[in-house]
Amino acid sequence: MNIISERAKISPTVIIYDDVSIGDDVVVHDYVTLYPGTVIKNGAEIFEHSTIGKIPTSPGSTERSYSNEYGKTVIGERCIICPGVVIYTGTEISNNTLLGDNCSIRENCRIGKYCIISRLVTVNNETVIGDYTKIMDNAHITGNMRIGSHCFISVLVATTNDNSMNRDANAKDHLQGPIIEDYVTVGAGANILPSVRIGKNAMVGAGAVVTKDVPPAKVVMGVPARIIRDID
Amino acid sequence: MNIISERAKISPTVIIYDDVSIGDDVVVHDYVTLYPGTVIKNGAEIFEHSTIGKIPTSPGSTERSYSNEYGKTVIGERCIICPGVVIYTGTEISNNTLLGDNCSIRENCRIGKYCIISRLVTVNNETVIGDYTKIMDNAHITGNMRIGSHCFISVLVATTNDNSMNRDANAKDHLQGPIIEDYVTVGAGANILPSVRIGKNAMVGAGAVVTKDVPPAKVVMGVPARIIRDID
Amino acid sequence: MNIISERAKISPTVIIYDDVSIGDDVVVHDYVTLYPGTVIKNGAEIFEHSTIGKIPTSPGSTERSYSNEYGKTVIGERCIICPGVVIYTGTEISNNTLLGDNCSIRENCRIGKYCIISRLVTVNNETVIGDYTKIMDNAHITGNMRIGSHCFISVLVATTNDNSMNRDANAKDHLQGPIIEDYVTVGAGANILPSVRIGKNAMVGAGAVVTKDVPPAKVVMGVPARIIRDID
Repeated sequence: MNIISERAKISPTVIIYDDVSIGDDVVVHDYVTLYPGTVIKNGAEIFEHSTIGKIPTSPGSTERSYSNEYGKTVIGERCIICPGVVIYTGTEISNNTLLGDNCSIRENCRIGKYCIISRLVTVNNETVIGDYTKIMDNAHITGNMRIGSHCFISVLVATTNDNSMNRDANAKDHLQGPIIEDYVTVGAGANILPSVRIGKNAMVGAGAVVTKDVPPAKVVMGVPARIIRDID
Repeated sequence: MNIISERAKISPTVIIYDDVSIGDDVVVHDYVTLYPGTVIKNGAEIFEHSTIGKIPTSPGSTERSYSNEYGKTVIGERCIICPGVVIYTGTEISNNTLLGDNCSIRENCRIGKYCIISRLVTVNNETVIGDYTKIMDNAHITGNMRIGSHCFISVLVATTNDNSMNRDANAKDHLQGPIIEDYVTVGAGANILPSVRIGKNAMVGAGAVVTKDVPPAKVVMGVPARIIRDID
Repeated sequence: MNIISERAKISPTVIIYDDVSIGDDVVVHDYVTLYPGTVIKNGAEIFEHSTIGKIPTSPGSTERSYSNEYGKTVIGERCIICPGVVIYTGTEISNNTLLGDNCSIRENCRIGKYCIISRLVTVNNETVIGDYTKIMDNAHITGNMRIGSHCFISVLVATTNDNSMNRDANAKDHLQGPIIEDYVTVGAGANILPSVRIGKNAMVGAGAVVTKDVPPAKVVMGVPARIIRDID
């Protein structure tokens, strides 16, 4: 059963499956699909061609097995979901966060309030992002990663969670993305290897390849990244 | 009020807001959205699921404040807009330019004639690109950037416009992307830092990180990029 | 004339052109477009906003001239095509392969069985990919490239096929992407130059720039990439 506010403005072309909840003053534009379990809170706006609450599916070529049940997919108050976004089931996005055009967020992520996940970013499953954090265009955030609050991850940054690069058939049981603490900034095109920890308020230079932990409040640069100086 | 040529071929599923102008022999495919102020000139073709003339919107998590008024968004004669493209309000694209699948161009850009902006490219706001220039797949072109004519920017190139990496709250008032002069070629995965100038006919090697100005007709390579030789 | 199984489940909003064939137990979700020559085999599932069988079109700004005739575009049995995918005409995808959200595959490619082409990947024309190979998110696979079976290409990897970087007007006649043999793994953000051959079971480190051939079963790293050790 659906619970849809009379004060929501929903285009007639929106596809709404069962068990969808839409709050007051929500706007849903044309050709959006809302899968079961989708919850859109007051004042959020969903732009054209977005797909929300999709369950992951496998043709037999993926390592993980998926649940075929829908969880709750929550879009917080006053969030903006831009055109062409795909959000998978079980992901929750807090208030006042923006998801840019054609980005994709996999299942069971938690994204904080006042974040920006920019255009064409991909976020993999089970990842947690704090508040006031920005992930810029065309970056990839891996699964099972932790990003703190007030972070800035620049464009085309790569992150990964499997040191075996898929060579270890058991790797799926111990994947660990990087851990990025609060107030960290990562420059454009940087590359952060699995399970690396980047300490609070550290800065990673553009194009750096970060192969080991970075202490708090240090600046690292280069391939591989080395400590250059303290944060001013 | 809309002005739509009788010689345009527009799918019945196209969403057309007010104040849209469509020229002769234009083709607009299914599930496209045309926001107010959109002007599509003669002979252009717009493919499925594109969104043209969108105004930027903010949930409070963006630095800049946006106008909530629509400017003119102009698609030149014989342009091809591929499926899933998003073009923001106030951007003008000259004749015979192609925008590839799922790319996104922000507001108030100027893109020349006979350009290719390839698939999944993101271009940020207020950027100017000359004529006969190609930006290849999955690259990011930052805001307030200038790219000349006859340039070639390869795949997955990163550009940025804020040296503070979002640490300076006032940075939004003096953002400056790179300046790329005519006939420049930039190799795959290169990374060009804010406000760097790349001189006419220079060549940047694949994977280079360009941290300072490049003189005209020089070849630079490496991390950070150094001058290797003159252009032949 | 279309041949559509009575056991297929096709949303009423799907646009189906002429000469489309849809097998048993296929599911086609809302707002999908199927161009002429599309063949969807038994048990495949096509998600929202995908566009299949598109012919490439040119506004005069592309080097190559295109056929304006549709070939067969084949989606194999039990394949999953995620939301927003674009597949061009003449491309054939074997059974049990998954294409991730908003990825784009150009014309006349051959993609093997049990592959994953992840989200926001771009694959250019005439490329051949073997079986059980994974191309991860936001990577770019160039045209006229060969990738073997059981390969793993990580996120944001760049590949190219034109050493002249578009400076040689005749380059379009002898473009040659890299050749990647079976069981190769390529790390995140690596960059593989045109016509380079990477030997069987070799491993390319994250962020490496591969400028020359890599022998089989070697590990290479760095900018430019050098041999570090043998595969264990």
